[in-house]
Amino acid sequence: MNKLTVIKVGGKIVEEAESLQQLFSDFAAIPGPKVLVHGGGRSATKLAASMGIETQMVNGRRITDAEMLKVVTMVYGGLVNKNIVAGLQARGINAVGLTGADMNVILSDKRPVKDIDYGFVGDVKQVDGERLSSLLNASIVPVMAPLTHDGKGNILNTNADTIAGETAKALASFFDVTLVFCFEKKGVLRDEADDDSVIANINRQQFAELVEQGVIQGGMIPKLENAFQAIDAGVKEVIITAANALDGHQGTIIR
Amino acid sequence: MNKLTVIKVGGKIVEEAESLQQLFSDFAAIPGPKVLVHGGGRSATKLAASMGIETQMVNGRRITDAEMLKVVTMVYGGLVNKNIVAGLQARGINAVGLTGADMNVILSDKRPVKDIDYGFVGDVKQVDGERLSSLLNASIVPVMAPLTHDGKGNILNTNADTIAGETAKALASFFDVTLVFCFEKKGVLRDEADDDSVIANINRQQFAELVEQGVIQGGMIPKLENAFQAIDAGVKEVIITAANALDGHQGTIIR
Repeated sequence: MNKLTVIKVGGKIVEEAESLQQLFSDFAAIPGPKVLVHGGGRSATKLAASMGIETQMVNGRRITDAEMLKVVTMVYGGLVNKNIVAGLQARGINAVGLTGADMNVILSDKRPVKDIDYGFVGDVKQVDGERLSSLLNASIVPVMAPLTHDGKGNILNTNADTIAGETAKALASFFDVTLVFCFEKKGVLRDEADDDSVIANINRQQFAELVEQGVIQGGMIPKLENAFQAIDAGVKEVIITAANALDGHQGTIIR
Repeated sequence: MNKLTVIKVGGKIVEEAESLQQLFSDFAAIPGPKVLVHGGGRSATKLAASMGIETQMVNGRRITDAEMLKVVTMVYGGLVNKNIVAGLQARGINAVGLTGADMNVILSDKRPVKDIDYGFVGDVKQVDGERLSSLLNASIVPVMAPLTHDGKGNILNTNADTIAGETAKALASFFDVTLVFCFEKKGVLRDEADDDSVIANINRQQFAELVEQGVIQGGMIPKLENAFQAIDAGVKEVIITAANALDGHQGTIIR
């Protein structure tokens, strides 16, 4: 099977002009079929504020009422996504911006209300790997916004890490998939205070031990759980690294 | 050749919940391959105002500075486009939202500054009819936002009538194209005060006469000039009609 790279970049990288230009160059340099999944939370919060809409976060997740849904649809599906697509086109990459509604590539269920009503937030139900695969085989590069739909006419705000993970899984029967999560650090760190203390490899047993020892904590735990789930579902490797190391030559590799 | 219908709907229709639902039903009922081109100016003006950005129009065209470009990218490419795509998906239509940057379907030149600097406004240079045609042949329905790109990384605000016209022309070598412009009236009227005075057919000679007589005036003149240009470029027929008559059974037919 052909190798495929699925790269998830956070909001910060795609929202600053300088790091965005660097991302375009780095992403363009990756050989073979590839997918880019982006965030955009900071811009959404900023736009909301400029419209007098308050942003409410619970456990790091955005509460998405009807007004906030408009904001994220505009920012993720419009501003951030289209600027990335235009920027990649300028580098000769035939990108297409997609939400889950476009070509029905990702169908979600609106998250059921338990303790918290997250509003118009989607939990991914189904990714159309075949459709994405046929785009990739036509040398088209999907640029995926963190938005899905419920099949009933509603756009749903959806976590970008989840979109990247589910997309990688859905493509695992068509390609040898490498899933790269970019964030602010160079990888999973042994010592939070030392940026160079990157743990080069982690397997499930080591992960459990490192969590028990308190070395891995906070937001890194669900990130790594996602990573192991992706591996279980057939993804070849998951790399957690910095945005300026998209080639995977540094960072933490999960296999 | 197969018949293809390219429909352009103005902002008003896609920006009000009720007329939007009606549009989805009417559009879904059109048989065969089809393309939807939409506007969204009213929402852009509204969003801009809520952000404290003033809208400046010259000859009915929006001056698009860097801030206004963000607004239209959000509204046209995000809010309006994705809501239409999700709404059509709910009716079983496999829609994909596209700006000109997506899959490089429409390349533009930034309008040169003469008397007026329109800012980030694009004049269409090239429509990739082959790409759109292959989407249509895969039963995908392009939903086109009035945005294009310059191939250098910039999104450009682009007139929706122009996008519809140029798209229809580019597809004329692949399909028998009917181009439908929807607007507030039932068609080209012989008497502005009488909504039922629709002129059923117009050819070039009649057009010239009606303009000379002052029957056709204002914004209808460039609309009809566009229509005749499309016919000259191989489009089978152009229909100017009301949004609730998408089937073309009323309105003015230009052949």
